[in-house]
Amino acid sequence: MQKLLYLAVAYGLTATAPALAQQAEKVDQAIIAKIKDEGLNRSQVMKTAFYLTDVCGPRLANSEGLNRANDWTQKQMAIWGLTNSKIEPWGDFGRGWDIEKSYVAMTAPYYHAMIGAPKAWTPGTNGALKKQVVLVKAATEADLAKYKGQLRDKIVLTEVASEPKTTFTADASRYTDEELQKMATPAEARPATTANDEARNAYRARLALRTKMSEMFMQEGAAAVLSTRGGSHGTFFTSNGAPYAADAKPVLPEIEMSPEDQLRLIRLVEAGIPVEVEMETRTKFQTQDLKGYNVVAEIPGTDRKLKSEVVMLGAHLDSWHAATGATDNAAGCAVMMEAARILKALDVKPRRTIRVALWSAEEQGLHGSRNYVKNHFADPATMKLLPEHEKLAAYFNLDNGSGKIRGIYAQGNEQVQPIFAAWLKPFADMGATTVTPRNTGGTDHLAFDAVGLPGFQFIQDGLDYNTRTHHTNMDTYERLQADDLKQASVIVASFVYHAAMRDQKLPRKALPQPPTAPKS
Amino acid sequence: MQKLLYLAVAYGLTATAPALAQQAEKVDQAIIAKIKDEGLNRSQVMKTAFYLTDVCGPRLANSEGLNRANDWTQKQMAIWGLTNSKIEPWGDFGRGWDIEKSYVAMTAPYYHAMIGAPKAWTPGTNGALKKQVVLVKAATEADLAKYKGQLRDKIVLTEVASEPKTTFTADASRYTDEELQKMATPAEARPATTANDEARNAYRARLALRTKMSEMFMQEGAAAVLSTRGGSHGTFFTSNGAPYAADAKPVLPEIEMSPEDQLRLIRLVEAGIPVEVEMETRTKFQTQDLKGYNVVAEIPGTDRKLKSEVVMLGAHLDSWHAATGATDNAAGCAVMMEAARILKALDVKPRRTIRVALWSAEEQGLHGSRNYVKNHFADPATMKLLPEHEKLAAYFNLDNGSGKIRGIYAQGNEQVQPIFAAWLKPFADMGATTVTPRNTGGTDHLAFDAVGLPGFQFIQDGLDYNTRTHHTNMDTYERLQADDLKQASVIVASFVYHAAMRDQKLPRKALPQPPTAPKS
Repeated sequence: MQKLLYLAVAYGLTATAPALAQQAEKVDQAIIAKIKDEGLNRSQVMKTAFYLTDVCGPRLANSEGLNRANDWTQKQMAIWGLTNSKIEPWGDFGRGWDIEKSYVAMTAPYYHAMIGAPKAWTPGTNGALKKQVVLVKAATEADLAKYKGQLRDKIVLTEVASEPKTTFTADASRYTDEELQKMATPAEARPATTANDEARNAYRARLALRTKMSEMFMQEGAAAVLSTRGGSHGTFFTSNGAPYAADAKPVLPEIEMSPEDQLRLIRLVEAGIPVEVEMETRTKFQTQDLKGYNVVAEIPGTDRKLKSEVVMLGAHLDSWHAATGATDNAAGCAVMMEAARILKALDVKPRRTIRVALWSAEEQGLHGSRNYVKNHFADPATMKLLPEHEKLAAYFNLDNGSGKIRGIYAQGNEQVQPIFAAWLKPFADMGATTVTPRNTGGTDHLAFDAVGLPGFQFIQDGLDYNTRTHHTNMDTYERLQADDLKQASVIVASFVYHAAMRDQKLPRKALPQPPTAPKS
Repeated sequence: MQKLLYLAVAYGLTATAPALAQQAEKVDQAIIAKIKDEGLNRSQVMKTAFYLTDVCGPRLANSEGLNRANDWTQKQMAIWGLTNSKIEPWGDFGRGWDIEKSYVAMTAPYYHAMIGAPKAWTPGTNGALKKQVVLVKAATEADLAKYKGQLRDKIVLTEVASEPKTTFTADASRYTDEELQKMATPAEARPATTANDEARNAYRARLALRTKMSEMFMQEGAAAVLSTRGGSHGTFFTSNGAPYAADAKPVLPEIEMSPEDQLRLIRLVEAGIPVEVEMETRTKFQTQDLKGYNVVAEIPGTDRKLKSEVVMLGAHLDSWHAATGATDNAAGCAVMMEAARILKALDVKPRRTIRVALWSAEEQGLHGSRNYVKNHFADPATMKLLPEHEKLAAYFNLDNGSGKIRGIYAQGNEQVQPIFAAWLKPFADMGATTVTPRNTGGTDHLAFDAVGLPGFQFIQDGLDYNTRTHHTNMDTYERLQADDLKQASVIVASFVYHAAMRDQKLPRKALPQPPTAPKS
């Protein structure tokens, strides 16, 4: 029964779409000129980014930093004149966690202060420790046996998977014309190879081993753990998988280290030289309020018939904890806020309501956006649609760093492609040209896509996102490119405006079937 | 009188040189094959580098780390069978200094552990400090006046001259063929421009202002100073100019910071947000032994007539203190030691004596090599020659990082060029092809050149020396390129061997006139 309903809805929506695509898509050149003027000549995007990064600080889900950012963004959007600006709970997340002290140094064979940060949601050391280091090398669970009885009161050193390399290629790059042209074509089908399965299985095996290791280090009475996920030159990556749940099992204090420092310790230990490490970390858990929150604010629609419909734009406000999450994703938030500010400054009268959403707990699995979608539109597990589902005209997301917009992913939605092509055309001279039919993943538009809503992510120049910024301790304000963020702000403002003014909502793909639906 | 003597000596030496240059230079292909075999297939250069860097640690002049390196290298060269291996005092240097604790964090508006290291030869904080920060911006001494009375008990923040940039060029590069071909020609004469004078004067003015600032911070009773010299992504540069003299004036505790951290503090202060910093540094001065030392060791000559003559090879063992000085200059030391080890392993019987020298206090002004030259060969101030002056056949130096050898600087010595060309030829397939008539500066061969001795530095691929390693906190073992160091070791071994076997010492340039000689 449920399935038939979904199919009927889906068919109804897709049936009207081809007609829309064939219309000449309206583009308002006058408003675009005004948007460019406001966004390029009176931009506030870097000021916003400064508040999100330097002033609020790291914004780990449910941390004090994210609380500061929630408060500041809610107030700032109200100051700009947006309405219904609010911090909206979305459900249960887990514990808050903040660093209050972080210090780690090698004290023998000589003194060397090291670069690292407590792994998210790990406990502190409860005062300063000074301990001998033991290197644990294990490719399988069986390898762990030989360390039994060796770890009590020691600091455990784990291996480094990838060593820093001297690089003969640049940290940062932009898409070439050739790369963009290739993206404008459908993705080549990637056959499901056994290599993929093997890689996935190997990854799962490593995760499982790492869990076993953590348990064993705890059982054996180790004092703390030093680990590293990679990076170079003082840049280190932080990793996922920490226990934020209110009822999470206890873990040891753990510091994620710069590879150079970790490798020095490893080389010394392997050469038989006794190594002693001093560390003092203090972390604070918050368990009073386990709920998660998003920040939303609106520019109300003015068309009698259409103002109940909504065009959304969003980005995630939460970040990892070792830096200020400048490119992941203060950049996206600052651009989305700036796009709204530009439209408000121009005092546009959108037909549909425009709603900015700043998500939380994206880094732990898109929790903020997924729960928002579940609360407002539909639960992907049942695909039971809520009344607001039919009211959403479009959702636009930005979460690929500080690079300027080069186009947009149509996310497999064929009918939206000519519309996006028309909307992009006025920005060709700013480098944004490409509508790709391809999907992109990894961020909050997926929450909308999962329930058949038209959710999109822009194509952005990669810059140094993968080499230096994404999830590292160096994702700081310096990494932001002002000109890129200004460009992105005006393009997003224009897209959102056009989506709000269009006669029809954006065409949708067929509704997905609920995973629980019986197979036909 | 003195001047005439020098001129006579100089004329005598240069008069014999053209005849030598016209001889077909002998190249011993058999020994080269053996050197390549030992140096490429049984290399110990990375093991040596590991001991110099990770095991000995940072090797600031007169530090405990340099003492460890002196001891280890002296013993290791003796173990390899070199003779007269010794730690040789060269005169007065100044105080030893080591870091015993280094911790700095922002504690308001929120907690953030920062990356930095005490500036060399600065005192510690005498326990933990937690203080408000004051930003001092001064382009001239007059600008300092407005901070009078504002600095007592504060941590002073100084400006950042160059901000980190997102880089679209690679950190590391190698010489192209075109660049090498250009180097093979004489340097274009650079006319003395007023721009050069202006730049020099501006530099001096900045130094003078910095000294004034330091004095003022001290007088005003500031608690400590945070400064930065540049860098990016967790890499920061350390700077020269610290007071190592035994009678140096007291200075404040000062931490050289990563630019990202310094800039975050600056941006917050400039936005009117109160910033508090916690720091604890402990540094240890050693004043028992103010002498400087070099390490020397020999492979004795075997030719009755020539064994009193010496071919030297060297590199400086001292480094800066925030890393382990891997490319500046454990790399050069490891290569020079390895070259000697290779020749010893092959049990060569050189006609002349081969002497390895590992210098100290190069970073403070080539003090180790300059004093060695003064003690053994000649004082450039008087150009009074000591008996050993006529016995030195050649000096080879390596101090441009971890890059492989691409050729050699003839240092304006025309007659040596065809000799070097012949010696390089067997290494063309390893990328070493270029003899440049040009000079290069900045390191210990200048000490020899200054008294008319044939001292040479090799051309090396730059790699990431200027971007990431030279004088930074990231000049660590990871930066070393094993294949490059092996290549350099075999080329140096061959050059040294050929210089030791040659019928004549290497031709010399005309002796320089002493700066104190009366003008004719």
